[in-house]
Amino acid sequence: MSDKPRRDAPARRRFFRQGTLLVSGAASVGMARRAASQELAGHPWERVYGAGFRGYGQPSRFEQAVQRHYLRPYGELAPGTGAALAPIEHLEGIITPSSLHNERSHSGVPEIDPNVHRLLVHGLVARPLTFSVDSLLRYPMTSRILFIECAGNSNRNLTPQPLQVPAGAMHGNLSCSEWTGVPLAVLLREAGLHPQAKWLLAEGADSAHMSRSIPIEKALDDAIIALYQNGERLRPEQGYPVRLLLPGWEGNMSVKWLRRIKATEGPTHTKDETSKYTDLLPDGRALQFTYEMGVKSVITKPSSTMKLPRPGLYEISGLAWSGAGRIRRVEVSTDGGATWADATLYGDERPKALVRFRAPWQWKGEAAVLQSRATDEKANVQPARKVWLARYSPANVFHNHSIVSWSVDPDGSVRNVHV
Amino acid sequence: MSDKPRRDAPARRRFFRQGTLLVSGAASVGMARRAASQELAGHPWERVYGAGFRGYGQPSRFEQAVQRHYLRPYGELAPGTGAALAPIEHLEGIITPSSLHNERSHSGVPEIDPNVHRLLVHGLVARPLTFSVDSLLRYPMTSRILFIECAGNSNRNLTPQPLQVPAGAMHGNLSCSEWTGVPLAVLLREAGLHPQAKWLLAEGADSAHMSRSIPIEKALDDAIIALYQNGERLRPEQGYPVRLLLPGWEGNMSVKWLRRIKATEGPTHTKDETSKYTDLLPDGRALQFTYEMGVKSVITKPSSTMKLPRPGLYEISGLAWSGAGRIRRVEVSTDGGATWADATLYGDERPKALVRFRAPWQWKGEAAVLQSRATDEKANVQPARKVWLARYSPANVFHNHSIVSWSVDPDGSVRNVHV
Repeated sequence: MSDKPRRDAPARRRFFRQGTLLVSGAASVGMARRAASQELAGHPWERVYGAGFRGYGQPSRFEQAVQRHYLRPYGELAPGTGAALAPIEHLEGIITPSSLHNERSHSGVPEIDPNVHRLLVHGLVARPLTFSVDSLLRYPMTSRILFIECAGNSNRNLTPQPLQVPAGAMHGNLSCSEWTGVPLAVLLREAGLHPQAKWLLAEGADSAHMSRSIPIEKALDDAIIALYQNGERLRPEQGYPVRLLLPGWEGNMSVKWLRRIKATEGPTHTKDETSKYTDLLPDGRALQFTYEMGVKSVITKPSSTMKLPRPGLYEISGLAWSGAGRIRRVEVSTDGGATWADATLYGDERPKALVRFRAPWQWKGEAAVLQSRATDEKANVQPARKVWLARYSPANVFHNHSIVSWSVDPDGSVRNVHV
Repeated sequence: MSDKPRRDAPARRRFFRQGTLLVSGAASVGMARRAASQELAGHPWERVYGAGFRGYGQPSRFEQAVQRHYLRPYGELAPGTGAALAPIEHLEGIITPSSLHNERSHSGVPEIDPNVHRLLVHGLVARPLTFSVDSLLRYPMTSRILFIECAGNSNRNLTPQPLQVPAGAMHGNLSCSEWTGVPLAVLLREAGLHPQAKWLLAEGADSAHMSRSIPIEKALDDAIIALYQNGERLRPEQGYPVRLLLPGWEGNMSVKWLRRIKATEGPTHTKDETSKYTDLLPDGRALQFTYEMGVKSVITKPSSTMKLPRPGLYEISGLAWSGAGRIRRVEVSTDGGATWADATLYGDERPKALVRFRAPWQWKGEAAVLQSRATDEKANVQPARKVWLARYSPANVFHNHSIVSWSVDPDGSVRNVHV
């Protein structure tokens, strides 16, 4: 190797800085082999005519193991109740392919005929209106790249003993897409919102009629009636033909299969915001209406259940996000939080979207604990696990945005640990 | 309707400005119906438990008509030779779903085993190297949202009589994805590029061994060895498991199924850059090595073969892009280029990516000709059709980036016209 990474950096922080320089300047990962003469011979697929075009393509059969992780508390008894999590340990960049987008459903995925479905806007409005899907497609559109995270994401990491499952099976109730639709404010204006309308009720057309109350300020600010996801029409499990989208807020408020918006004076206190989606506090009370998702990050590569084949230069790669706006900084530690170094960010110009962070790591074969810590533009800092736990009852299962720790053993095994 | 769009604007340009204000301020598209009492009754799918989770999701069955458009010059004799174009008339935003990404192949799509495939870097280098796919996945990554346009895109619009087909079947040899991979410069540095290496040969593992010559400056600037597309691994028709990606340059230089990069003193003059992919000039000569794709735009909604149901407020929506960098401006005309108004841009902060433009249009039922005209950050302006045609031989089939015209008849029919 011509440009061997230096191994003599006196401090970890300095090493990271050098590492960053090395990667952007003259890195040598050294994973290539010297070429031998037979390399040009060619493989069987180079000697046969390939497959024909397809109208709607699919992944390679060699990638069929990349699937969503199921969390189904009632198993086959209710195969569409629970969640299917994005396999973030297999993904790169910030866009989640729609086929792997996390899904949280309360009574399965309804199969909705878009020619029959209607969106009703009523309640405290001058003109109750119904919108067909075709009519919504005529309205002015807006597009944004935005994350959606379920309020219950990462609650599997609250078990007393750390689970040894892939990162996505714990932290993948999270995804990021380019969403396109009609600003909700446009429809409310057309219906003529009464001044005393301070809340909305949003209701889905699933058989659970999943419903949430939404403050009118959010509805008039950046709420979107989404019709497209990553260029094409919404997927069925994402609310086809129409869903609500509340940027940065807990996922289930972005009501899928949206059938009804009712303007009201106060919150409706539906079953989905009283018996569920409240945060249990140490004193036994339940905190209602926690909207904004906390600043958070997770290292996806390397992550639990992976194994590093041998010492060498690795790229630590992961995702960061905040419901409060833009990510300003992600720090990475390889010694369980004793020292930290800044990671490189991609996508941090967009508020309320996933950000990809990357940092080089020269692993010499020592035991290590990898962590990441995100800071957003409002100066919110991702809390340590113990700090976060102290705020809630042990029975709380929502809004866990604490720091995630992966240990690396000298044999290269990566495990989930509670630090 | 409470906020009826004004119909008395004295000049079209002023109308557009007002229209923009209306849409962002207090538009009433007026496509909703007054709600009736039965709207709350609910549809059959609200009364049955929905479908279970799926590991890898698919679109709604009601969207099955959204497919790529095939251009297969030899039909079933060579079902993977030609192109399959993105149905841009059905898409919104700027991300193209990977399943609908345009594909151009010369000998079909090879089915490559990623465990066997190798990338060879050789020629004028100090150390010829082979990279397995697993080893490439260990290298430092970079992500960018970038368009890919085939050099032959829009050549179907060069027929003497304008074709009446959907916009995507003429202009959809174009897509935009988030690509993630290893900077090519990193691999070249590791191999130790000789000073006399001024070009590269890039060769694919399809049975056509599609090959192109690439100036070393581009390779060291922003070329990517792409491994991921929109978060997941590359699709087979996009070069799985590894492709070259040259931002902003004609699509077939981003060699798919990349098996070999050879450093050379000069261009190799492969069949794919001599018998094809050259621009025929009026004097009979062929211009070789036209790399950068010209500044361009196309209105996707409304577009040819569509029909406007009735007069009213419409959103004109389309795509703009430039191989030279960022899009700075897109103007829209509804009178065949006599007057122009600025459209709103989305995504214009990113160089060499698609940009979505949108402009409101109050259609009163008159005959109209819709056009869009893009300008990039280098002040390149999309040329009129006649201006562009005059630069080339009538037999030229590449790099048509001239202005596209759609006529709207008083009955709402939208047709392709040559203006």
